[in-house]
Amino acid sequence: MSIITLCTDFGMRDSYVASMKGVILGIDPSANIVDASHGIPAHDVRFAAFVLNGYYRYFPKSTIHVVVVDPGVGGPRSGMVVETKGYLFIGPDNGVFTHVLREGHPACHEIDIGRTVSGTFHGRDVFAPAAARLSLKRDSMVIGKRIKSPVLIDASGPSVGRGGITGEVIHIDGFGNAITNISSGAIRADRILGIVVKGHRIKGLVGTYEQCSAGTLCSLIDSFDLLEIAVSAGSAHERFGIDRGDRVRVVWK
Amino acid sequence: MSIITLCTDFGMRDSYVASMKGVILGIDPSANIVDASHGIPAHDVRFAAFVLNGYYRYFPKSTIHVVVVDPGVGGPRSGMVVETKGYLFIGPDNGVFTHVLREGHPACHEIDIGRTVSGTFHGRDVFAPAAARLSLKRDSMVIGKRIKSPVLIDASGPSVGRGGITGEVIHIDGFGNAITNISSGAIRADRILGIVVKGHRIKGLVGTYEQCSAGTLCSLIDSFDLLEIAVSAGSAHERFGIDRGDRVRVVWK
Amino acid sequence: MSIITLCTDFGMRDSYVASMKGVILGIDPSANIVDASHGIPAHDVRFAAFVLNGYYRYFPKSTIHVVVVDPGVGGPRSGMVVETKGYLFIGPDNGVFTHVLREGHPACHEIDIGRTVSGTFHGRDVFAPAAARLSLKRDSMVIGKRIKSPVLIDASGPSVGRGGITGEVIHIDGFGNAITNISSGAIRADRILGIVVKGHRIKGLVGTYEQCSAGTLCSLIDSFDLLEIAVSAGSAHERFGIDRGDRVRVVWK
Repeated sequence: MSIITLCTDFGMRDSYVASMKGVILGIDPSANIVDASHGIPAHDVRFAAFVLNGYYRYFPKSTIHVVVVDPGVGGPRSGMVVETKGYLFIGPDNGVFTHVLREGHPACHEIDIGRTVSGTFHGRDVFAPAAARLSLKRDSMVIGKRIKSPVLIDASGPSVGRGGITGEVIHIDGFGNAITNISSGAIRADRILGIVVKGHRIKGLVGTYEQCSAGTLCSLIDSFDLLEIAVSAGSAHERFGIDRGDRVRVVWK
Repeated sequence: MSIITLCTDFGMRDSYVASMKGVILGIDPSANIVDASHGIPAHDVRFAAFVLNGYYRYFPKSTIHVVVVDPGVGGPRSGMVVETKGYLFIGPDNGVFTHVLREGHPACHEIDIGRTVSGTFHGRDVFAPAAARLSLKRDSMVIGKRIKSPVLIDASGPSVGRGGITGEVIHIDGFGNAITNISSGAIRADRILGIVVKGHRIKGLVGTYEQCSAGTLCSLIDSFDLLEIAVSAGSAHERFGIDRGDRVRVVWK
Repeated sequence: MSIITLCTDFGMRDSYVASMKGVILGIDPSANIVDASHGIPAHDVRFAAFVLNGYYRYFPKSTIHVVVVDPGVGGPRSGMVVETKGYLFIGPDNGVFTHVLREGHPACHEIDIGRTVSGTFHGRDVFAPAAARLSLKRDSMVIGKRIKSPVLIDASGPSVGRGGITGEVIHIDGFGNAITNISSGAIRADRILGIVVKGHRIKGLVGTYEQCSAGTLCSLIDSFDLLEIAVSAGSAHERFGIDRGDRVRVVWK
């Protein structure tokens, strides 16, 4: 029984997710379809890339991860199959697989499902049948030409200087926590003089959300192994206006 | 393993969806329960009918589609089982199956699950057990009297004249696209002089969302095979105030 | 095939739910993961306790119910396994299992998964692996020290006097219905002179939502067997401002 995960910006109001599930089960009735996320903000490729990177590696090997977030659906860009040592990824070639592609140099191929399809709903008409056929190992019915230079989104890391590290907020989660692009490996907790974001100065790291003083900003290494700015049982986004793209500076002693 | 899809206006905050799933699995532990949509606006039968029509046909034959959207739950109206050549549908007899019923003349029967039930939660106490028993082919435990005239919602088509077609917006999707009741079959792209909605004039059809000029209204034949008014990577609903019920006129040359 | 239900305050935007599902399927690929609710308001333990109580008993025996709503994640509090005659419950020892614990005196144990874990995401790193191992009957890999006094939230019942019953609104559902802590057993419909909430007086009980007069407040015994304040096809919360914590008084003749 194959696992096929779905990540879309379709929400759960419309028929779009359900029609994809129907197409998959029509081809592979034994597929285990897993709703990963349907709450990606409309057309937000960067958001989807971050979310995918947060879950794909926890699934068992051979899982097929489908992502359908595409402001340019129907354009000249191809659908893509990305094959890594552990997983298959299916979706548009628009940068949504950036983090996966940076982890190695997986094989990327166009999806060729052998017939003309609608220009408006590739999720149902291209990606869903491709995923279901791959789950049945009908690879030859799906995999087309090699894609040599898949699209990558600009995901520059933080800049490291003698006095500190300058990064940025790359994601606001549903709790209002602000996740930065500064990884735990770049940080030595004992060297931190302060962390500065939007004019606020945070003294150092705490170990868990619970250790934050109520109502104040604090910072910690989160479950993504990234530096995160948080408010205990509150929203750093709503209370302090911290948002994606904001600069975050770690200052060394 | 039977597939049972669920479409409700329950959202995902409360216990209502989960208790239906529990009841189904309690009767048929092997049922494959598929979340179709739980984001139908409260009591919006018309919305649910449109959404159901968008996904039901993509599921494999014998799928059982349950819809629970019912402003009149507990009233004198019966629960209903609709049987078409391919599918079973279970839900209230309130018009939610209008599109299915118009596609042929399927058999409709009252649900009779043989005991008195709560007046407030037919999803859990009537429709879920009915679906699970039908999935076990225990039809005789569910199917009651024939319903000769099931309720239909008024879903009049567009009016076609010599100078053009006048239809209306029947659905706003989660992206803010405005879907009309004008089907592709009624339209000859080469004859279009313009498409008029809310005082805006759109020149003709584009093939895909990508071909819309940024920020302007455009129209295309969508994945439902219907005329749709859209904004590339934006919301026709939010930017231009186009809403359900708005008149849409296709003017011939 | 074990059933594992998930109830969280994670929403469906982020990777949090999906990474839990991945961890579970990585340990027990045959687990039937059921989304119960991911729309619990952030950190609202009381809300989660009410929702869990609304669905858990409808699932077949041996179902494993996981709840992850925890303002104090990473604090000194342990993860907990609660074992009743029918079910296993997994989550934080913060009161979320109050209603389950009050139904009997089930055995409560700390979760001990035998390694140090992240301080920020117990859902993925503690509760998901514990659930999957318990579904494989690997109890010895999960169950630690006995918890003698698990945390309970204050869920005091209504006060019953000679003139009537005074309770409160304990939950607003997605339709805006106001559910009280007054159970059907405490009420004798024929003795009701009136029900008073926020200065509004409701005459007596109706049997179903359909029997409410449009636009007016009415009260009924709902699918939880509790007294509920509702508006037919409308929201008692939005139209009349009724909210959690509001006092509700049933006055006898």
